[in-house]
Amino acid sequence: MRAAVMRGGELVVDDVPDPAPGPGQVLVKTLACGICGSDLHFLKYGEEMVALGEEMGVGLGGPAVDLSKDLIMGHEFSAEVLEVGPDTTTGVAPGDVVVSVPMMLPPNFDMTDLTGIEPIGSYSNRYNGGYAELMVLSSILATKVPNGLDAQRAALTEPMAVGVHAVNKSGIKPGEAAVVLGTGPVGLACISALAQMGIEPIVAADFSAKRRELAATMGAHEVVDPRTEPAIDAWQRLDGVKPLVIFEAVGVPGMLDQAMRAAPRGGRVMVVGACMEPDTVRPLIGIGKELTIGFALGYDPFEFVQTLHAIAEGKVDVSPLITGHVGISGVQGAFAALANPDEHCKILVEPVLD
Amino acid sequence: MRAAVMRGGELVVDDVPDPAPGPGQVLVKTLACGICGSDLHFLKYGEEMVALGEEMGVGLGGPAVDLSKDLIMGHEFSAEVLEVGPDTTTGVAPGDVVVSVPMMLPPNFDMTDLTGIEPIGSYSNRYNGGYAELMVLSSILATKVPNGLDAQRAALTEPMAVGVHAVNKSGIKPGEAAVVLGTGPVGLACISALAQMGIEPIVAADFSAKRRELAATMGAHEVVDPRTEPAIDAWQRLDGVKPLVIFEAVGVPGMLDQAMRAAPRGGRVMVVGACMEPDTVRPLIGIGKELTIGFALGYDPFEFVQTLHAIAEGKVDVSPLITGHVGISGVQGAFAALANPDEHCKILVEPVLD
Repeated sequence: MRAAVMRGGELVVDDVPDPAPGPGQVLVKTLACGICGSDLHFLKYGEEMVALGEEMGVGLGGPAVDLSKDLIMGHEFSAEVLEVGPDTTTGVAPGDVVVSVPMMLPPNFDMTDLTGIEPIGSYSNRYNGGYAELMVLSSILATKVPNGLDAQRAALTEPMAVGVHAVNKSGIKPGEAAVVLGTGPVGLACISALAQMGIEPIVAADFSAKRRELAATMGAHEVVDPRTEPAIDAWQRLDGVKPLVIFEAVGVPGMLDQAMRAAPRGGRVMVVGACMEPDTVRPLIGIGKELTIGFALGYDPFEFVQTLHAIAEGKVDVSPLITGHVGISGVQGAFAALANPDEHCKILVEPVLD
Repeated sequence: MRAAVMRGGELVVDDVPDPAPGPGQVLVKTLACGICGSDLHFLKYGEEMVALGEEMGVGLGGPAVDLSKDLIMGHEFSAEVLEVGPDTTTGVAPGDVVVSVPMMLPPNFDMTDLTGIEPIGSYSNRYNGGYAELMVLSSILATKVPNGLDAQRAALTEPMAVGVHAVNKSGIKPGEAAVVLGTGPVGLACISALAQMGIEPIVAADFSAKRRELAATMGAHEVVDPRTEPAIDAWQRLDGVKPLVIFEAVGVPGMLDQAMRAAPRGGRVMVVGACMEPDTVRPLIGIGKELTIGFALGYDPFEFVQTLHAIAEGKVDVSPLITGHVGISGVQGAFAALANPDEHCKILVEPVLD
């Protein structure tokens, strides 16, 4: 099959062997796969990310990823089922359009033993992600896309679920207020989830005019260019009294300190932007205001399915986030194009376009 | 009156005018006043601490402290009531031994308006702390010491309340486990509060043998020298499965990163050690493990009174923490002596000893 392969720190288009579905797996044809900021990070900082994962000892199961060998990224996908593996019971059938949490469960998976779960995509040499024509998915996790939702919007399930999880994890509830710093895909997913929950006001900030426009579309009540008005000032102007959660979705050094400085006494900061480098904070600010800083990663399978249904039922319109479509040959160019936030938000890789 | 005055970044013993009680105030004679690590910090980093407080905009009411003018520190005190101010209704009378939250409420204080509250001690040129023979306290906050508790142990109410508050704020509950990094007075107060709550195991770590001994006395189930065994390894050895809260009570650069690295997935880190300098963390560690970092400061008046009663009723024995007694002339020497954790834990200033 054709794939955009990460090889020696570069992306190259190549023909690689087709995957074959084993027990408990289904073979699928990739329909659409979003390019995630974490893939851009992984291409650039792969060694550091793998090393840090090992240091933390929080990796998933399976053999450690070997960056000297090929791997194929892409974990925001929708796909069409082609074939069900041997000895596999599943609710999906060839022809179904599915999405899945990008994880592979072992055959005869048992909820009491999570050690056999392996990642699909960046952290695996074994299970390729969606920057390829074919993939194998876990038959248990492959979820049929309901309500005739198209494959493009279905592929947004994964990044939108990240926002749902971050908002759930923050503990924010109706009657409280939110500030979202940075309105890239993660920030926009948070805004969407906050709006779904009825949080008001939601104040968002981004340097990019295009991103600010998307923030308003996804449900932010006030959107500011921080060069003109800091987000916290806009919140003070609009509200200033409700308990506040600040979502830090920029992920560059200095932002956490900025969020801590902006937070009101007793405020909460939810870190959802992955800052790849060490960052400097002033603990005295945290102490002086008794802040709580939470960190969020991923989602659970229920949040994932809940997000799929919200999109399929039209509660969340993700269309405005999709700003580009490329074939496998276009992945490398799309990685470069995503550096410009005024041009792009989410680019979908659709192998059929090659 | 005689006082150890902070003047030009130094401590000097001098005679200063006696304070006079106004409406809503009582004049007291200082019986005992503990030396707090934050006083050592304030003497050294006063300018930075005042500037940071102003930047955060979380200061208490009253005029900003002016470090070019005299101030008298000491906020862990017990005292004897000498005189009740004019137009003052109070439950205490001359001769009563009292403790108080180190705050001055305005006359005719109203809970709906907290803006008139001023600090007593470091952050005030107006209301001196306990490194002096006399003080004025708020008639509402002055609380009679019950059960015949002596003035020395009563003076430990304030630092022990800090631990009660940090433990409350962490949200830890029976069935969970705690690691306490650093067993200075704040770490020891946390251990005591955790033990009161029935948390088990409580694992504590400190480089100092004397402090480790105190940690065991205050209720730690396992105490380690981190050069021999890291606290997290000891927790793994003893438990390793209960939800864990790590109390970071060292407060030097690098400790927050160390606590984040040690924390298990989903773990909580409670920062109770005041790190005076900017500190470096790796946000990816927080994200990868979905950590929550909380910061605690002070206590509320209920926690303060609850702590006083726990000490007075013998539920908490603070005697082992008291390692020295000096007069006002001994404050400067005591500041120096506290640099040696193997020698001292809490030194009390008792003006009567001069």
